[in-house]
Amino acid sequence: MEHVKQFFSNEDKFARHCGIELLELRPGWARTAMKIGPHHLNGARTVHGGAIFTLADFAFAAASNSHGPLAMGINNSVSFFKAVKEGTLYAEAKEESRHPRLASYSVRITDDGGDTVALFQGMVYRKQESIIPGCQG
Amino acid sequence: MEHVKQFFSNEDKFARHCGIELLELRPGWARTAMKIGPHHLNGARTVHGGAIFTLADFAFAAASNSHGPLAMGINNSVSFFKAVKEGTLYAEAKEESRHPRLASYSVRITDDGGDTVALFQGMVYRKQESIIPGCQG
Amino acid sequence: MEHVKQFFSNEDKFARHCGIELLELRPGWARTAMKIGPHHLNGARTVHGGAIFTLADFAFAAASNSHGPLAMGINNSVSFFKAVKEGTLYAEAKEESRHPRLASYSVRITDDGGDTVALFQGMVYRKQESIIPGCQG
Amino acid sequence: MEHVKQFFSNEDKFARHCGIELLELRPGWARTAMKIGPHHLNGARTVHGGAIFTLADFAFAAASNSHGPLAMGINNSVSFFKAVKEGTLYAEAKEESRHPRLASYSVRITDDGGDTVALFQGMVYRKQESIIPGCQG
Repeated sequence: MEHVKQFFSNEDKFARHCGIELLELRPGWARTAMKIGPHHLNGARTVHGGAIFTLADFAFAAASNSHGPLAMGINNSVSFFKAVKEGTLYAEAKEESRHPRLASYSVRITDDGGDTVALFQGMVYRKQESIIPGCQG
Repeated sequence: MEHVKQFFSNEDKFARHCGIELLELRPGWARTAMKIGPHHLNGARTVHGGAIFTLADFAFAAASNSHGPLAMGINNSVSFFKAVKEGTLYAEAKEESRHPRLASYSVRITDDGGDTVALFQGMVYRKQESIIPGCQG
Repeated sequence: MEHVKQFFSNEDKFARHCGIELLELRPGWARTAMKIGPHHLNGARTVHGGAIFTLADFAFAAASNSHGPLAMGINNSVSFFKAVKEGTLYAEAKEESRHPRLASYSVRITDDGGDTVALFQGMVYRKQESIIPGCQG
Repeated sequence: MEHVKQFFSNEDKFARHCGIELLELRPGWARTAMKIGPHHLNGARTVHGGAIFTLADFAFAAASNSHGPLAMGINNSVSFFKAVKEGTLYAEAKEESRHPRLASYSVRITDDGGDTVALFQGMVYRKQESIIPGCQG
């Protein structure tokens, strides 16, 4: 798992660009964090939906790739409940279903105070190979 | 419209951070572009779902705020059809429905060759004020 | 609550037509059931996505209207994990967020054996009046 | 195509139970209709979200199975724009993307007057066999 965690932390260039960190990874489960800065805000000066989505998507990608085979996101939905301006956001991805070719995850995004900021659902298509060197798909 | 376009181009800090540009804006319609760089890629070396979502979300935000009143994104869904590694991506947001409090938009994301890369749907809740100086909600 | 439960059981004509029963109702929470019959099946002889959606939607409607004000569904997403052919399906709706105008619910659909068959998310717009005689919005 | 259309018209028992008719079918495209009756209404006396979903889902199922291989719905999202009380509703499903294993469809639901009532998106997983006698997957 440490090997897979390291791979995602280094190789997900967009998550790095957005200042998103992979805190924990277990099979089918992951937790990410993003410390809010001025570059995460939208025109209304709240955290951009795209930044919240990316935080959740990174947890989803790590959780769905944790078993080995390459999991490609095919569909997501997200609902936003609370506008946030500062502090740190967290996303926790949980496996809801896993078949040989398809798997599904739910991700809860929370703020510093533990309030739910958004809920995200994601489905992946699982290939036979792995993207992680040394892992077999 | 030029005034509103300028506001979004300057004030959406996360879109700027992601290298996303607002190309055109008309009432209820917007078009954005993102030239793909290495910082947009995920661990599988294709454009990150979060970057594609943000490109679409910026077009959606501009289109839904083009009428004046502040429109806050409350729900999105996105389906991904094609993995992309290079070139420029475009998103075109179109108004599907608009009521005093709720409005809905569909966004098509295409690549250089005109292929559809993803489809995005978004709903906003419309407040009475405007976020754009000099616009009344 | 018994009053509201009775209203939904009698007045939701489509849920009745589909053989869906409201088992329990508490503020922001509801549970429904559907005994599978031949009229619930699709061309592949598994329970139709529309029947599963309706089962979840009825729990969502009851939970979101349980507080009094009329709650109208504006957006749903649903992911299907398991094809089912017989037995009874259950849906449990849980409130995730509630504001004066918007509220959000997640619904888990399970089979007789407790397996998750589908996950559903729904958002409502809340009006000022109530549809339930004797309830104020 | 007539063969496939006949199969769906006869074998989709839930669509029949809901009074939904398959009007037209072409490869990757389908159109369905539902004449609204009292059994389609919810507690607010407008057409039930589950009935509208089922109308769209039947068009989606017919369009996605029109090529031969069994296509199973794995994910849907739907946004509702207009409450309807009477008349006839129509759904038109259009193929947005098709790969060997996955395909995606958008469905527009309209009323008698041509107004958009709802928009639906759906993704299928495509198996190797066909459910239609005499069709090869």
